[in-house]
Amino acid sequence: MTAPVFAAQPYSGIASFGRVPVASDATGFDVSILGIPYDGSVSYRSGTRFGPRSIREQSLLLWGYNNVLNVAPFKTLAVADLGDVDVFPPDIVATHREIERVASKILTTNSRLISLGGDHSVSLPLLRAHAKKHGPVAVVHFDAHPDTWDSEYSGQRYSHGTPFRRAIEESLIDTSGYFQIGLRGPTNGPEDYLDAARLGAHLITFDEFRRTGIDAVLNEVRSAIGTRPTYVTLDIDAVDPAFAPGTGTPEVGGFSSYEILQLVRGLRGLNLIGFDLVEVSPAYDSSNITAILAANLVFEFLSLVALQKT
Amino acid sequence: MTAPVFAAQPYSGIASFGRVPVASDATGFDVSILGIPYDGSVSYRSGTRFGPRSIREQSLLLWGYNNVLNVAPFKTLAVADLGDVDVFPPDIVATHREIERVASKILTTNSRLISLGGDHSVSLPLLRAHAKKHGPVAVVHFDAHPDTWDSEYSGQRYSHGTPFRRAIEESLIDTSGYFQIGLRGPTNGPEDYLDAARLGAHLITFDEFRRTGIDAVLNEVRSAIGTRPTYVTLDIDAVDPAFAPGTGTPEVGGFSSYEILQLVRGLRGLNLIGFDLVEVSPAYDSSNITAILAANLVFEFLSLVALQKT
Amino acid sequence: MTAPVFAAQPYSGIASFGRVPVASDATGFDVSILGIPYDGSVSYRSGTRFGPRSIREQSLLLWGYNNVLNVAPFKTLAVADLGDVDVFPPDIVATHREIERVASKILTTNSRLISLGGDHSVSLPLLRAHAKKHGPVAVVHFDAHPDTWDSEYSGQRYSHGTPFRRAIEESLIDTSGYFQIGLRGPTNGPEDYLDAARLGAHLITFDEFRRTGIDAVLNEVRSAIGTRPTYVTLDIDAVDPAFAPGTGTPEVGGFSSYEILQLVRGLRGLNLIGFDLVEVSPAYDSSNITAILAANLVFEFLSLVALQKT
Amino acid sequence: MTAPVFAAQPYSGIASFGRVPVASDATGFDVSILGIPYDGSVSYRSGTRFGPRSIREQSLLLWGYNNVLNVAPFKTLAVADLGDVDVFPPDIVATHREIERVASKILTTNSRLISLGGDHSVSLPLLRAHAKKHGPVAVVHFDAHPDTWDSEYSGQRYSHGTPFRRAIEESLIDTSGYFQIGLRGPTNGPEDYLDAARLGAHLITFDEFRRTGIDAVLNEVRSAIGTRPTYVTLDIDAVDPAFAPGTGTPEVGGFSSYEILQLVRGLRGLNLIGFDLVEVSPAYDSSNITAILAANLVFEFLSLVALQKT
Amino acid sequence: MTAPVFAAQPYSGIASFGRVPVASDATGFDVSILGIPYDGSVSYRSGTRFGPRSIREQSLLLWGYNNVLNVAPFKTLAVADLGDVDVFPPDIVATHREIERVASKILTTNSRLISLGGDHSVSLPLLRAHAKKHGPVAVVHFDAHPDTWDSEYSGQRYSHGTPFRRAIEESLIDTSGYFQIGLRGPTNGPEDYLDAARLGAHLITFDEFRRTGIDAVLNEVRSAIGTRPTYVTLDIDAVDPAFAPGTGTPEVGGFSSYEILQLVRGLRGLNLIGFDLVEVSPAYDSSNITAILAANLVFEFLSLVALQKT
Amino acid sequence: MTAPVFAAQPYSGIASFGRVPVASDATGFDVSILGIPYDGSVSYRSGTRFGPRSIREQSLLLWGYNNVLNVAPFKTLAVADLGDVDVFPPDIVATHREIERVASKILTTNSRLISLGGDHSVSLPLLRAHAKKHGPVAVVHFDAHPDTWDSEYSGQRYSHGTPFRRAIEESLIDTSGYFQIGLRGPTNGPEDYLDAARLGAHLITFDEFRRTGIDAVLNEVRSAIGTRPTYVTLDIDAVDPAFAPGTGTPEVGGFSSYEILQLVRGLRGLNLIGFDLVEVSPAYDSSNITAILAANLVFEFLSLVALQKT
Repeated sequence: MTAPVFAAQPYSGIASFGRVPVASDATGFDVSILGIPYDGSVSYRSGTRFGPRSIREQSLLLWGYNNVLNVAPFKTLAVADLGDVDVFPPDIVATHREIERVASKILTTNSRLISLGGDHSVSLPLLRAHAKKHGPVAVVHFDAHPDTWDSEYSGQRYSHGTPFRRAIEESLIDTSGYFQIGLRGPTNGPEDYLDAARLGAHLITFDEFRRTGIDAVLNEVRSAIGTRPTYVTLDIDAVDPAFAPGTGTPEVGGFSSYEILQLVRGLRGLNLIGFDLVEVSPAYDSSNITAILAANLVFEFLSLVALQKT
Repeated sequence: MTAPVFAAQPYSGIASFGRVPVASDATGFDVSILGIPYDGSVSYRSGTRFGPRSIREQSLLLWGYNNVLNVAPFKTLAVADLGDVDVFPPDIVATHREIERVASKILTTNSRLISLGGDHSVSLPLLRAHAKKHGPVAVVHFDAHPDTWDSEYSGQRYSHGTPFRRAIEESLIDTSGYFQIGLRGPTNGPEDYLDAARLGAHLITFDEFRRTGIDAVLNEVRSAIGTRPTYVTLDIDAVDPAFAPGTGTPEVGGFSSYEILQLVRGLRGLNLIGFDLVEVSPAYDSSNITAILAANLVFEFLSLVALQKT
Repeated sequence: MTAPVFAAQPYSGIASFGRVPVASDATGFDVSILGIPYDGSVSYRSGTRFGPRSIREQSLLLWGYNNVLNVAPFKTLAVADLGDVDVFPPDIVATHREIERVASKILTTNSRLISLGGDHSVSLPLLRAHAKKHGPVAVVHFDAHPDTWDSEYSGQRYSHGTPFRRAIEESLIDTSGYFQIGLRGPTNGPEDYLDAARLGAHLITFDEFRRTGIDAVLNEVRSAIGTRPTYVTLDIDAVDPAFAPGTGTPEVGGFSSYEILQLVRGLRGLNLIGFDLVEVSPAYDSSNITAILAANLVFEFLSLVALQKT
Repeated sequence: MTAPVFAAQPYSGIASFGRVPVASDATGFDVSILGIPYDGSVSYRSGTRFGPRSIREQSLLLWGYNNVLNVAPFKTLAVADLGDVDVFPPDIVATHREIERVASKILTTNSRLISLGGDHSVSLPLLRAHAKKHGPVAVVHFDAHPDTWDSEYSGQRYSHGTPFRRAIEESLIDTSGYFQIGLRGPTNGPEDYLDAARLGAHLITFDEFRRTGIDAVLNEVRSAIGTRPTYVTLDIDAVDPAFAPGTGTPEVGGFSSYEILQLVRGLRGLNLIGFDLVEVSPAYDSSNITAILAANLVFEFLSLVALQKT
Repeated sequence: MTAPVFAAQPYSGIASFGRVPVASDATGFDVSILGIPYDGSVSYRSGTRFGPRSIREQSLLLWGYNNVLNVAPFKTLAVADLGDVDVFPPDIVATHREIERVASKILTTNSRLISLGGDHSVSLPLLRAHAKKHGPVAVVHFDAHPDTWDSEYSGQRYSHGTPFRRAIEESLIDTSGYFQIGLRGPTNGPEDYLDAARLGAHLITFDEFRRTGIDAVLNEVRSAIGTRPTYVTLDIDAVDPAFAPGTGTPEVGGFSSYEILQLVRGLRGLNLIGFDLVEVSPAYDSSNITAILAANLVFEFLSLVALQKT
Repeated sequence: MTAPVFAAQPYSGIASFGRVPVASDATGFDVSILGIPYDGSVSYRSGTRFGPRSIREQSLLLWGYNNVLNVAPFKTLAVADLGDVDVFPPDIVATHREIERVASKILTTNSRLISLGGDHSVSLPLLRAHAKKHGPVAVVHFDAHPDTWDSEYSGQRYSHGTPFRRAIEESLIDTSGYFQIGLRGPTNGPEDYLDAARLGAHLITFDEFRRTGIDAVLNEVRSAIGTRPTYVTLDIDAVDPAFAPGTGTPEVGGFSSYEILQLVRGLRGLNLIGFDLVEVSPAYDSSNITAILAANLVFEFLSLVALQKT
């Protein structure tokens, strides 16, 4: 029996993600974890500013070895926790600017970036930073909602319902490799999905997912994306509220925890360059099960990165 | 992108169901929403008196367009929220009389009635009102329990475990079109199910549902009911407590949120005349996921009514 | 025994404040209740956007007659609930502009305005509207914190820690009649209180309150303010977290519920022109006791207004 | 150091009150504990049906010796837990009849009865049983509300807002020794208190309590009551919601836990014949502090009875 | 309709398991229920000491007849609740000794023992007691984790992560009939599973379960075990946290409530000699759904025992 | 206005206590913060193992300047957070040994030690470490319970109810300067207090505190202790559960948050050498108000130490 990865039990100590070292500079690390405690643009329940802290705390349950993918990412990879970027609650533009600045700086070190939201608006500056480095990127986007509205609040271009329209307008996304998976629930009208499709996204609703089956969905994603640099964004509300109650705009009728784990694992082999997991809202997270799931999903992504390296 | 159905975000404003107009008279409305905050006859956890308020609050998350059924019920239909009927907690008979009086008055306007419980005893006066208008009705009854006991408390004929026996005794239900779907869990004895069957109900236990499959179940329901006027009663405890913890007598091993959504959608094409959704108990509803599911189920029913009209 | 003010029990019906009529225009009402569901500038726990809804819901417990002040404000006064002002979470400036616009419009009708926050930043546009009508106003400010920082987030002038510095800079407050009552807890430095004092506020810390006694405090306030038009702003975190846990930046060692009730009642006789109650955060409000206290404090203020009229 | 009264730690075992023996007959016991899990007549939050179970569970924290009164009631007295009386949620009259029947039977054994509610309506049948034995009794009634309405729901004579009017009408109470202590909060009108006074109750509002002081209040009670047989009824909402959040109709601005303990202890020397503690509602009892307080108040009453015996 | 098994409603009375008689001696009972409120060795969230009490409370929802297995175990079997064994939180060795002593005494009466944990360390003394009687036993072990570490805390042989290694070392388990079902989640390394396999356990991970299907899994278990005396140990964390949030070390991606019910029912026909259900932690059990599931799983096991007898 | 002590808002970043540096060695720091996540010996609710993490998280609300004592302890003192000591849940003796070892090592650096529990048993090894350096120390002990039992569990010398008897037996405490303040609630018998007194403790029950007044109590403490090296141990259950619900063995009728703040501040001028704050149990801490109070009490102690230095 090997020694534990972590010296201490999960109830003990100061919680960085997975107890990796806390660093102020990404240099020399394969992967950087960055918290983005911004919830200033959510349309229903607020509170996702506490997402990064809760995910870090629950990440201490991750014992280190991935038995499905047969990899020990914390051993294979040099991972650092860079703490949280500064955010300015009343000013989304200043906040996005700071996120982009910090993310860009990390990416210059060739560290991969895993970001913990925060609301989904933060994917826009993250995509800006990644596209600055890689050019327009393929995106696998797990979500209950397309987040491609033009404006969610009167006259406001930036909020958690608009980042992917903005990202496409800014040519950050290579839409030939852009998949939205898990869409469901009421929308403002048929235009919500039609607009997303017109913008170039490939929509896979939850209904289609269940009809088609996970293998077919993953095959479609893999064959369309190929070897393109691929960014993964995972809104935890893609998951059914039974499995992920701690979020701001829950949609019933979604993925089980096992399905979302399989979906992320199923991205194995893609050229993965970055990941964000957003919209975990701890004040609504009965028994912390959402944060535990989120920590596991980050662990799966880390495992995929570790497999790329090996 | 169309304008939102709702002018305000879901956290904002005074909550009528789906922000439809509040009215004191159903005249001129295709559908009336009525709250029935009565929880005086429950056998375990009380609190479903707060069900209507919580469902209304969470209904503000319903953006308006049903992407599976391709209909916008709040646009197709004139819907009103009639507020809550007066109830008298210590007196079930007086309460039922008032429910029947108010429901009957609404039905005379030719508005369809969607009722938000409250405990399941309220289906009895609702069925009285509907049968007064339509004669004995077919009933699709989603529930973990048959609710056809003769008496739940010594000498008490009326309570949340007896309404459908009373309704059959009073010839309110056309039992050739009466389905109980989702039954499971321990009962007092084999008689509980046998009695329900002897009274004329078609029982589809959860076990049978999973063995048979949803399509076969829905086909059986549709072919047996045909074009009869059909009332739908949905006890939220039909759903597994993981998906609907906020209820009074939870039974493990039940429907997922996706299954119950499919089941309600699957009633498309029936001659639907009324609907109640009962037993949502907010004090036990961690993170409000039960009320969100309930609001969505009402939305699906509204969508079916909208399709009938179009 | 008189008939109840409210026809229905508190668990029943759609909740306007105290079941007063919902109106879109303040004309003809002595008092208007306005919700401001904005929490975009808080520095710790978010969620006060749900404050207005929760206070309205708990206000149904207010039976109508004030036994200490011997007045029935809902009978003496014509009170309306104007619902919630539109807010734009990612944009504090646009939000403040809309609050000021709506508040100003209400004040032109000569209706008094009682506002339910929302975070404390909303007092700034509310003071703008009141000062536009009355000129610089006396302010009785109950709070654990002075809220007179120059900037809470790098480069941001507007947030829930700065409104009263801004208001003084904009000459909205007649500082000779400006009292901050209940201050306590750690601050950034001695400058926090010194700055507030230099800006003109009369500071009464919680320690001084307990040493001096409530009568002396109220006498000081009354004699300093005299007949000036007086605005009252009450941050619920003035109250100890045992009595008001549902707030964003709790400070231990504060007022009991009885003390804050006495303090508000003790403003009797002042020339009261407006009131806001802010920072109720329902997601942290175990058992709703904070919202119940908030509803009672609004009721006390309404009672004071009713006494002015009689 | 003596052996613990209880063999097991409080987390262990099946919870009778204070681990006293469970019995089906009161004969031979000085005091009987009886649960009354009826919440069918409450006007706001339901759930006090779970009060007896929660109080029993928390009573295991009572180590046995009263250090203020210097008595060990579980040693001085033979105490039994008779379990819960049968209640019939939809029928208050049948429920009251059963409560009276069971209570009367217990009282014929000369066991004193301590009842755990349940809502306050249960005091009526309890007073019937006690008055049958003792004639009209003096009553010390701790409450935020007078509970002397004539009717709380249209046409309903019995509910948790009317028991003491009914009891006076039925001559169960010797009103010359009837004190209502702790009244506060909004009422329907001045008539609520005036009616209670006209019916004969001595009203001591919370304001008067704080002005007069506890010693004066207790002296007044003792001198008015003298040696009359005295029944004590304690609605936990007499206590401030900070100290007793787990109740159905919380009123802010009430007793602290220390004050209510002192008040009950202060009844020492009265001729105490019975006690009920009502309106504990566990679903709203954050961290069980209300049930812990309730268990302690029962313990204080037991201590007073023990002192009477010694 | 038969009379209810239980005289009272589930909210009423003092809760033994299923309202069976409380006894201090197992003699004459077919089955004994024993609580083991020990949580002294858990590695993350503590609190499972309250598991037995919560399971007992929720067991009152079990109406008595198993409709899937067609048996009424409380009628077929004489069942007693023996209360809780004494535990000594700071001393695991003394606690295990007392558990073994009490369990052994029960087993000498030929009563079967069903134990309610408590943390999983308690299975070790329980297996000691069962093996003393039956020799090495086959074990069906439902769990997310193998619990076969050599040491979880530096130098500590006994804790909730090690009982099955100890049991194998002590020859309590016939490993040719030892199945671990439901394993998943990160481990310390590949050795965790490899070690369990080397020790002799048959591992069926959750992934394999879903790929293979429940019938194949059950067939494998039954054919390997045959007629050997079989002990069943069920760690509730085998179930997904959505269905069983109230546990100490939740692992996402596990069984639904329906699957675990089917798995336990699927053991029908085995020579079942004992059962424990461990790791229910009520402080994390939103809405009690974990305890309700646990009570139902005990009921299924009782049903299997009843079928053995008939 | 000075710059904030903390660069980030309280919702942001990885939480060391008050954002002081995390260090593995106390050398060079005036004060070391040490978490002790051990809850293995509690007699009721477990969970205080999460106390240190929760107190650290809420400590981010401490803005840095103490307005009552006029000192900025984080500026005056070099403070480090040493993280958590390793604990071994099933073995109290090994755990205590490790606590003593780590604490002793810290004390050799001349850093003062502030420990965050964990249950009250941890005060024993902490006193061993302090007495090793200072000889027998004066102790100011705030608690609802004397914690001087001889044995709490059969045959167990060490647990959270016995540390101060052990400490006196081991001559760690100079009992002429040993005060227990806040005692109340039921005990096993009169011996509990008598034993504590016989052992040498000066007992000040809560009743005496309220009768005598805080100034007299503090004067008595100060004059008895004089300049002796003084250790302060604060069991959060000294505080009333309304203000500190998050603890394991709550006793009603205790200190308010303001009173405990005044008591700790009132130790100004004593020769303070160490401090522990124990028994914060986050799973029962509605809205985190207990942890917020605990963080403030640590801040007050830090302020006292800062005043000693200046």
